[in-house]
Amino acid sequence: MRTIVLGGDGFCGWASALRLSKKGHDVYIVDNLSRRKIDRILKTNSLTPIKSIKQRIYTWNKINKKKIKFYNIDISKDFKGLDSLIKKIKPDTIVHFAEQRSAPYSMKSIESRNYTITNNLISNNNVLYSIAKNNKKIHLIHLGTMGVYGYDFSKYLIPEGYYKAKLFIKSNVINTKILHPASPGSIYHLTKAQDELLFQFYQNMYGLKITDLHQGVVWGTNTNETLLHKDLCNRYDYDGDYGTVLNRFIMQAALKFPLTIHGSGNQVRPFININNTADCILLASENKKRFNKVNIFNQLTETHRLINLAKKIGSISNCKIQHLKNPRIENENNTLIAKPMGLIELGLKPIYLSKDFLIKEIEFVKKYLKRADKKKILAKSKWKIN
Amino acid sequence: MRTIVLGGDGFCGWASALRLSKKGHDVYIVDNLSRRKIDRILKTNSLTPIKSIKQRIYTWNKINKKKIKFYNIDISKDFKGLDSLIKKIKPDTIVHFAEQRSAPYSMKSIESRNYTITNNLISNNNVLYSIAKNNKKIHLIHLGTMGVYGYDFSKYLIPEGYYKAKLFIKSNVINTKILHPASPGSIYHLTKAQDELLFQFYQNMYGLKITDLHQGVVWGTNTNETLLHKDLCNRYDYDGDYGTVLNRFIMQAALKFPLTIHGSGNQVRPFININNTADCILLASENKKRFNKVNIFNQLTETHRLINLAKKIGSISNCKIQHLKNPRIENENNTLIAKPMGLIELGLKPIYLSKDFLIKEIEFVKKYLKRADKKKILAKSKWKIN
Repeated sequence: MRTIVLGGDGFCGWASALRLSKKGHDVYIVDNLSRRKIDRILKTNSLTPIKSIKQRIYTWNKINKKKIKFYNIDISKDFKGLDSLIKKIKPDTIVHFAEQRSAPYSMKSIESRNYTITNNLISNNNVLYSIAKNNKKIHLIHLGTMGVYGYDFSKYLIPEGYYKAKLFIKSNVINTKILHPASPGSIYHLTKAQDELLFQFYQNMYGLKITDLHQGVVWGTNTNETLLHKDLCNRYDYDGDYGTVLNRFIMQAALKFPLTIHGSGNQVRPFININNTADCILLASENKKRFNKVNIFNQLTETHRLINLAKKIGSISNCKIQHLKNPRIENENNTLIAKPMGLIELGLKPIYLSKDFLIKEIEFVKKYLKRADKKKILAKSKWKIN
Repeated sequence: MRTIVLGGDGFCGWASALRLSKKGHDVYIVDNLSRRKIDRILKTNSLTPIKSIKQRIYTWNKINKKKIKFYNIDISKDFKGLDSLIKKIKPDTIVHFAEQRSAPYSMKSIESRNYTITNNLISNNNVLYSIAKNNKKIHLIHLGTMGVYGYDFSKYLIPEGYYKAKLFIKSNVINTKILHPASPGSIYHLTKAQDELLFQFYQNMYGLKITDLHQGVVWGTNTNETLLHKDLCNRYDYDGDYGTVLNRFIMQAALKFPLTIHGSGNQVRPFININNTADCILLASENKKRFNKVNIFNQLTETHRLINLAKKIGSISNCKIQHLKNPRIENENNTLIAKPMGLIELGLKPIYLSKDFLIKEIEFVKKYLKRADKKKILAKSKWKIN
């Protein structure tokens, strides 16, 4: 199986690329290293020391007798580069992580909003066009987000992409199946909803094979593969833009800082472990069934109310909880009923967030605290424009 | 009333800007003249001789004692230019025509696909952001397309943007109202569906006042205002990318060429006269009601099956009908039940396509035939990628 991993130098991309390589895929990583560049722009860094992409791959290939190859291509700007590579490599599968993936970063300024829209949509359009041009049988696996659903209907089970529906117009009733209504909470999430329309379009028009994975908040840092050697260490983002809420709590616990929560803390979010992310990519790539429409799977294993997570980590670390004014415009008291369905059918074995993990992760983070710029921890990007 | 018309040098934009000016609006035209530039790239031209934007505005202002002003800004690239202008002018209304509006052009190549996506979405995002930043009471009137609906449910009346719906998930039934499912037939139409998600997002997040006009195919050339002086003459696009199907038939009738139709000709499309387009913009700008959600109006007055239009024009002009292989990927036998509703309520008086108009338009076109490059008439952009 020949697999291109777009964005294979990022947090989920690197973990997934190694899992695929471990399981026998011939892996080709494409990345423009934009995630490292944004770190420099934001004057922050991964808490864990990560090696250059060349060093990472060199070490992986050496200790596992593998041949991961790397190509530095900006797939949003260099269609020809991407297209020639797809023509040359003839992949069976393209896994696409190469999008700007931070909601706060996407809301920071008009520039970061426009960058997120252009980067994410044009990357996708270039990939889809190249697949339609070269070989319509290439399976595109795209990382989407649970955030496209929003919370309008989340007190009922969130579907996997589609609702059975009755539409009413005058005295007519239309019985149909529809793509879920989109209710994104940031420009980042919006681009993923716009991506969905791109997928529907290319699928209808050209019959492409597309899987869109609607992922939750990823927790954990290393996987079975990245733990094999220190050169393979994965990113840990602790800054207010790219760090997840759980990473922030863990950082603050390690530093004995108050655990900061946005507004009420009654927000419920979906979660998944980084090892399970890699599992899902592998499972999706091995899935041969159901391509008469865009496959949509919800890639989460559990949901947590943020205040409860904070309390749990507070009791472990003996840290107080501090409620801050919410920098986001959001429903602070949502419900969220969501569970993995398609991915469980495909064989996913969920790893649940445990007290034991939290204790170990706080200890893990403590080893790197001297690398942290503590002023970067709080979320500063605001949803309000003026 | 202070009104900025983005894209005010284009076919609909120019006609609408003059109507607004005539009716007492202080009009500020913003345009990067991209439509004229694309003509040069495609080596084609407006059949009618159109004056430079400066000459057009000079003549209009002189004969009507008006003060339309012009600003050459690329609103997809120059956020600061756009934003300073909005800050300075303090408009009540912004009418937004500044998008790439040809479906065939949007399907021509990867470059034209990406241009259409970037230009259309970033233009919109810049306008929406600037409104949210400067004054949330500015009313944004955007030109969308009936093409966002597609033909999945078009044997029932097409709604104005929203369906009452029941969504089914397990044993639950969700009673709600949803934005219509999008089923765009080209990248151009897709961007208008993606625009709709942008509008929903900015409306939910910042409470903006937005009207999205889902327009049909526009017929006719001049309006009451553009007829006032030869310098004010409007565009007539006859080329395969920007010319509408009706313009193509009329050109072919004037030339005594066969009337070419794509595939069966059983496609049904919505239509509206250019004078009615200008009416709708005026009516939408005077509409003070209903801004608790994005206002969506269907901007058409009638529908026609293309083969019937061809037959009508064939009988007038004594031209044969020639069926060509369809360059598009589309349903060639759709039904379309659609009518204007909100705009009629606001006061629209429909102008219907008549035999008399067709006869006059063919004669009008004959006056300019020496300006035409006859090789440009047929549609050459293909939907297929390889």
